[in-house]
Amino acid sequence: MNMTEKILAEAAGLREVTPGEIIEARVDLAMTHDGTSPPTIRTFRDIASRGGPARVWDPERIVMVFDHNVPANTIGAAEFQRVTREFAREQGIVNIFQNAAGICHQVLPERGFVRPGMVIVGADSHTCTYGAFGAFATGMGATDMAMVFATGKTWFMVPEAMRIEVTGKPEGHVYAKDVILHIIGEIGVDGATYRSVEFTGDTIESMDVSGRMTICNMAVEMGAKNGIMEPNRQTLDYVRARTGREFRVYSSDEDSQYLEDHHFDVSDLEPQVACPDDVDNVCPVHRVEGTHIDEAFLGSCTNGRYEDLKIAAEVISDRRVHEDVRFIVSPASREIYLKALEDGIIETFIRAGAIVCNPGCGPCLGAHMGVLAPGEVSIATTNRNFRGRMGDPASSVYLANPAVVAESAIEGVISAPQQEA
Amino acid sequence: MNMTEKILAEAAGLREVTPGEIIEARVDLAMTHDGTSPPTIRTFRDIASRGGPARVWDPERIVMVFDHNVPANTIGAAEFQRVTREFAREQGIVNIFQNAAGICHQVLPERGFVRPGMVIVGADSHTCTYGAFGAFATGMGATDMAMVFATGKTWFMVPEAMRIEVTGKPEGHVYAKDVILHIIGEIGVDGATYRSVEFTGDTIESMDVSGRMTICNMAVEMGAKNGIMEPNRQTLDYVRARTGREFRVYSSDEDSQYLEDHHFDVSDLEPQVACPDDVDNVCPVHRVEGTHIDEAFLGSCTNGRYEDLKIAAEVISDRRVHEDVRFIVSPASREIYLKALEDGIIETFIRAGAIVCNPGCGPCLGAHMGVLAPGEVSIATTNRNFRGRMGDPASSVYLANPAVVAESAIEGVISAPQQEA
Repeated sequence: MNMTEKILAEAAGLREVTPGEIIEARVDLAMTHDGTSPPTIRTFRDIASRGGPARVWDPERIVMVFDHNVPANTIGAAEFQRVTREFAREQGIVNIFQNAAGICHQVLPERGFVRPGMVIVGADSHTCTYGAFGAFATGMGATDMAMVFATGKTWFMVPEAMRIEVTGKPEGHVYAKDVILHIIGEIGVDGATYRSVEFTGDTIESMDVSGRMTICNMAVEMGAKNGIMEPNRQTLDYVRARTGREFRVYSSDEDSQYLEDHHFDVSDLEPQVACPDDVDNVCPVHRVEGTHIDEAFLGSCTNGRYEDLKIAAEVISDRRVHEDVRFIVSPASREIYLKALEDGIIETFIRAGAIVCNPGCGPCLGAHMGVLAPGEVSIATTNRNFRGRMGDPASSVYLANPAVVAESAIEGVISAPQQEA
Repeated sequence: MNMTEKILAEAAGLREVTPGEIIEARVDLAMTHDGTSPPTIRTFRDIASRGGPARVWDPERIVMVFDHNVPANTIGAAEFQRVTREFAREQGIVNIFQNAAGICHQVLPERGFVRPGMVIVGADSHTCTYGAFGAFATGMGATDMAMVFATGKTWFMVPEAMRIEVTGKPEGHVYAKDVILHIIGEIGVDGATYRSVEFTGDTIESMDVSGRMTICNMAVEMGAKNGIMEPNRQTLDYVRARTGREFRVYSSDEDSQYLEDHHFDVSDLEPQVACPDDVDNVCPVHRVEGTHIDEAFLGSCTNGRYEDLKIAAEVISDRRVHEDVRFIVSPASREIYLKALEDGIIETFIRAGAIVCNPGCGPCLGAHMGVLAPGEVSIATTNRNFRGRMGDPASSVYLANPAVVAESAIEGVISAPQQEA
């Protein structure tokens, strides 16, 4: 079996599972955010009113993170948060992060909730991020999540697997984001639908935790059920530093079967850009250089980590943001914000004229903190550029790495950073 | 004549003006923000289409500041900013601060636009803040502002004057905010309607620029047309450090006539709190201690300055924000943010668990960044606590000084800080 199958088999109490099989699996951790908690709670109460349990199956295995609309941007958002807060109090859910602790997918690993071998479900599509730690992690809707809250179990159809081997050492300002954009460009937004995507190869094996998270984060952008990587030394160190609890590391058997096997050599890769309005509309940055932008956004669960902020700050140095561009920076967590503060990175941004917002999802989904007007263009380190994703349906979004976003913010047009990374 | 009359007479080209007289005055500076620029522009274009000028009277005397909804929280806000940006470009208005440079009433003095003796109009009610610098400054609506854009002139009815003398040295955690809340509590929200309020006395004379701005800022909360103070040494130093331009300092004649004369001794003043839902519903903090709060907000044009952040950070020290409170901090300008960053004040806030937002008006007016749900309670350093001001009509707001707000954020209930200021 491969890693995903082994984790699912163990969680289902089976010796073996095969693709296509429907299983009922134990859930180790369930996550909801400020947008998805209230519908989950509503359905949970509905189930309770029909004879279901009145208490969640295990309050310690539920984590709630307010990140999509923090601080509350509307009365409705404030009300959603109030409802969630009250539910957490009532149910004894102590792991609730209300006050801009960060984006859920950053907070969970940081606070030691994510360990290899776990089954993690989240009411957010980018829950697949935790695959970077060798966990099986996938997003689900609020109705399914309500059943998890009630029973601690859920059903899965065991996904067919696909292996993506990445080799070679990227040079210059080429990062994990470019690797995954390039892969999605080749595989397509529906090229891995409901598949388990296993990332392997020396590029992945030597990659830092931040980069691994970026890659698994975007597995869902090619339709994957989950993205997964065998934890490397850095990942294990990261996990051990943040949790005293035991965990089991799974590896794929040598004879694992994969429906597809892909290989990417990224030695000569250029920085990549996903152009409007699809994540797989990818090209090397030089093809879109000079494109006018109105906004640049550095942040999100894809690229709002310390490493990303540092790359951007180094690109900016003592230069100033272009006067016609709003450059919005939102660290992915409070921990990241503090570290960037101590290292002078936040100061670099503010001196440059950036708008540094509190940790959260910010403008990624067009909810607040940098919504685009009709006709406006953003370049962002985020994961989605669908029509209207960051604002008006007539606005557009280019996805890129932190260095390209920072250089573009300075130049006022899409630009490749100088080659001195 | 008093200071206000002298400034207005000079601006109207008259030797003398008297209360009640209607004059046409030259405007030295006109300000609009992201919320009021588009209606001003629309009316300006309407006037142009009826034979009015196609160009603003003097692009260098217009300053535009985006502060109410930065970064844009809705498509509509983004569109308002786009329209304003385009108008500024078309008209050659170079003094446009788009990217969270700060709140208009902080940015204008900081960037050297405000000098004693000027006539300043702003499409924002707290334009009266600049009275702290010995300027005549008042808010107006977008229609009047469009005429200013077109002609550089406006009409005023010369206000009746009222003098408020403040004496005594406040002790402990008592600041300018407490002085003005106490005054408004006595005078009432309509006690100075359309009057010029002149603040004098040794308390005012020895007060720092930040405190003077706090007091003049809230003159409109008792209905005043303007608040004004003779510039003291600190104020002149502040202005000279920020502008190379000349200015004229006006003083009220000894024999000036005032419709009312008030005197307040603040030697024994306690910290004051304005309770829901009126700014004049003021009491000493001890009377409302223990009141549950959901949110605490430190910021705004009233109390978002460096001095305010420093007071709050000292009160917090190494303590943590109460887990049920969201403590939102928004420095009033980028300059303030940077200074607070360098001095470790921002770090104190973040370590304490505060949500540090970008400079701007933030939740003060319930637009975004901390909107209140039904039934929720905020304690804020802001200037208005009308029903629904910060969110749902069934939410409520207490106004207080930065020390009281910080202490309350730590305690989770309205609290007086310890007496070690």
